[in-house]
Amino acid sequence: MTEVQTRRPARGGGGAARRAERGAVSFETAQYIRRNIPNFEILTEEALEIIETNAETVLAEIGVNFVNNPGALALWRDAGAEIEGERVRIPRGLARQLCATAPREYTQYARNPARNVVIGGKNLVLAPVYGPPFVHDIKGGRRYATMEDFRKFVKLGYMSKWLHHSGGTVCEPTDIPVNKRHLDMLHAHMTLSDKPFMGSVTEPSRAQDSVEMCEILFGRDFVQNNTVMTSLININSPMTFDDVMMGSLEVYARSNQAAIISPFIVGGAMAPVSVAGTLTQVLAEVLAGIAYSQLVRPGAPVIFGAFVTSIDMNSGAPTFGTPEASQITYGAGQLARRMGLPFRSAGSFCGSKLPDAQAAYETANSLNMGLLSGVNFMLHACGWLEGGLVSSFEKFVMDADQLGALHKFAEGVAIDENAQAMGAIREVGPSGHYLGCAHTQANFKSAFWRSDVFDYKPYETWHEEGARDTMALAAVKVEQMLANYQQPALDPSIAEGLADYVARKKDSMADAFM
Amino acid sequence: MTEVQTRRPARGGGGAARRAERGAVSFETAQYIRRNIPNFEILTEEALEIIETNAETVLAEIGVNFVNNPGALALWRDAGAEIEGERVRIPRGLARQLCATAPREYTQYARNPARNVVIGGKNLVLAPVYGPPFVHDIKGGRRYATMEDFRKFVKLGYMSKWLHHSGGTVCEPTDIPVNKRHLDMLHAHMTLSDKPFMGSVTEPSRAQDSVEMCEILFGRDFVQNNTVMTSLININSPMTFDDVMMGSLEVYARSNQAAIISPFIVGGAMAPVSVAGTLTQVLAEVLAGIAYSQLVRPGAPVIFGAFVTSIDMNSGAPTFGTPEASQITYGAGQLARRMGLPFRSAGSFCGSKLPDAQAAYETANSLNMGLLSGVNFMLHACGWLEGGLVSSFEKFVMDADQLGALHKFAEGVAIDENAQAMGAIREVGPSGHYLGCAHTQANFKSAFWRSDVFDYKPYETWHEEGARDTMALAAVKVEQMLANYQQPALDPSIAEGLADYVARKKDSMADAFM
Repeated sequence: MTEVQTRRPARGGGGAARRAERGAVSFETAQYIRRNIPNFEILTEEALEIIETNAETVLAEIGVNFVNNPGALALWRDAGAEIEGERVRIPRGLARQLCATAPREYTQYARNPARNVVIGGKNLVLAPVYGPPFVHDIKGGRRYATMEDFRKFVKLGYMSKWLHHSGGTVCEPTDIPVNKRHLDMLHAHMTLSDKPFMGSVTEPSRAQDSVEMCEILFGRDFVQNNTVMTSLININSPMTFDDVMMGSLEVYARSNQAAIISPFIVGGAMAPVSVAGTLTQVLAEVLAGIAYSQLVRPGAPVIFGAFVTSIDMNSGAPTFGTPEASQITYGAGQLARRMGLPFRSAGSFCGSKLPDAQAAYETANSLNMGLLSGVNFMLHACGWLEGGLVSSFEKFVMDADQLGALHKFAEGVAIDENAQAMGAIREVGPSGHYLGCAHTQANFKSAFWRSDVFDYKPYETWHEEGARDTMALAAVKVEQMLANYQQPALDPSIAEGLADYVARKKDSMADAFM
Repeated sequence: MTEVQTRRPARGGGGAARRAERGAVSFETAQYIRRNIPNFEILTEEALEIIETNAETVLAEIGVNFVNNPGALALWRDAGAEIEGERVRIPRGLARQLCATAPREYTQYARNPARNVVIGGKNLVLAPVYGPPFVHDIKGGRRYATMEDFRKFVKLGYMSKWLHHSGGTVCEPTDIPVNKRHLDMLHAHMTLSDKPFMGSVTEPSRAQDSVEMCEILFGRDFVQNNTVMTSLININSPMTFDDVMMGSLEVYARSNQAAIISPFIVGGAMAPVSVAGTLTQVLAEVLAGIAYSQLVRPGAPVIFGAFVTSIDMNSGAPTFGTPEASQITYGAGQLARRMGLPFRSAGSFCGSKLPDAQAAYETANSLNMGLLSGVNFMLHACGWLEGGLVSSFEKFVMDADQLGALHKFAEGVAIDENAQAMGAIREVGPSGHYLGCAHTQANFKSAFWRSDVFDYKPYETWHEEGARDTMALAAVKVEQMLANYQQPALDPSIAEGLADYVARKKDSMADAFM
């Protein structure tokens, strides 16, 4: 059974963590998944070698662009790359060699040490949806997201048993000026939850603010010596590394904070229409990006990322939960493991406008694939709707419930004497019934995963109660969770420090809305 | 790309088939899936050996019951089993040895030879839902199924591109007397579709009627020498083989017609609550059932079946798409491959009352698992609702659409020069766009699987068109398909022969409703 615990003896997350832990009203959170199952490997050794060779060819002959970033070009030149304008051509083998200093796994510390996560290896850490400018719920429909919505999602994430990570931009708080909203978002993650979280990447200065707020929360020494954020650095595919994202990466790498280096690919638009071609480009981009992180600071923790969707060639719309996206993700997982790096991909992806059957087919396809492809950090694991334009309250809860099934499946199959159940088979015999037998009585509590959202009632009961679909049942759950939310305790001096920092920073800037 | 064809050079399905083929208005049907991907193997060699040893212990020490079946007991006694009352104890190794005469794969012939299917090996044949007494559609809600509903489902199956098989009891036509409905059902499959189908198993005499109707459709010689039906023989788990099912099996095996030998298991009720224990019992039951089929006629085509769900221990309701059911199915697939037998499991399983998000999560979990577990024959691949109580028109179409994604995924990853796409990566370069490049233009038609049901439109368009969910979109598709249905041509003398047979048989019996 998954080890579910709220108190885990672990290296602490600084003084705040230790103090907070004593007073917290803590909701049950499952330990991150530690797979006891194999990965599904779709590519042959031959295919993997061809893709790896081709990726080196891309880096050496075509190269990548580092835009508006003379510092990066200088680092690359010193490392032995050929620079022409903003184009960086990387000799065969150099990028892979530079990547070798990146750790195979790392611990991201939370202010509640029971919620530290180890990213890499056989582990899978689950984090919520990231980035949507809209929210959707059953009552209000689709509308622009606000800071109040943001706080609700952080609360839901804190209370979701199968979610290990609070995430980052769970929705865009569009009612807060663009240049200030990162402060409110970080403040929410730090004070409304005690799970690990992500930092801002929309400007290098905001990445710096994120580090400074962590220094208040965890203590300066702790942050200098430990990773307390994992942040999302997207590559502008094809093969373009812009100065905003690279500037943020530089801040995080220098501070020993983790970054996901992630090509952002809609197949057929930002990469070739073929699986092998897309994997070649993904690998080339990740090699260049992670190599650069190690040029900034050897040993900086990073994740091999791959955000991949396909496209509907009729309409140009991105499509989700598709077989091609699955093939690419399975292949990328193999490539990441051959590099010895943590892997990020998959999520609760769907293109649907509602949390309906389309949304669930697409999401389940992607979640199952994410588990079997060896993903170590799954961003967007719940709440994603409409191609990532919308964070859905109901779908957040529906998806988060399905994540429990991933935990159970990942435990693998026990084969000890109790699991063999020969005594039960003897006891019951032909034509008997297992419900009452001793083995069933001893094991039924942990035997079967059970949804906390789905309907398992008899038809008549279900009908009398209003014949509700999954969205309606999830809406009830959302309300219940928000009504039962209790804020985790935080040392008052730290809370004050964070509030002061946010207020001071906000006062120092004029509002910007672009 | 999946080979989609309506004309395949293949050994014909008798004179009727050849005549029908010339005049048919034929809807496009994909070739059955031939996997070019590995299977997911969850059990270690050690675990497999323990389960195999334990299954032999079950057969030798506990035994199985063959109920009301003196003939079966005599066959078993002659083969070396120990008989005590109706209990059959099978010495270690005997059942497995008897199973060795069953073929590794077999062809089931259709009256349209382009729709013959090869069951076994790396193939996956998809057949619709089987058995529900109710139907559900968006207009009429949930109600008892009628023969008119049955015919509609056969038509939908005939027109569904990704469905290779017409199935059997797509719903129970409750308006027809119990002892006559098999005649109408077979008549519908034989005349409204030209895909392969299943025979009746509810009485041995009805199995015999099924064989006789096939003799009219395919010709008597053809049926004696070829398999034209694959029928479902359920085992009354635990370890009970009743006379009705075994009587039907005997009819089919003697006629060289195929049978799925399938434990029917709700874990915790008909089998132990543990995965390893359930697999032990499944294997013991299948060994005994398939061994018996080979005692009846060595070489009779059979399938290793496993219908497996878990149970909600709170309410006693069966639950679907769960991690435990997946683990059991993956393990059963490994056991079947070690026996060298075709494998049947998985399907569009769900417990939901509506084709909503719950239904789709559960179904997608099960469909993905079915593909990766090496299933060769997937009954219930579309249309299953409410724990198998209901055949849903909308879900039939939604699920059948998802089956297209399985086809595409199963093709595996091409690694030839075109797939490597190095020319495209060179052409586009950093910061470019792939939509217009030559490689994209040359490959876009076959590059990405696309749903024919899901919504891919911009939000505004979708909203203007009524903000329809997946069920509403599927309902439109159901109406369109039924409106466009055209019956495949059939030789008039055969059509007359079938109609006469049905009328004559019906006249020979009083109506029975139990």
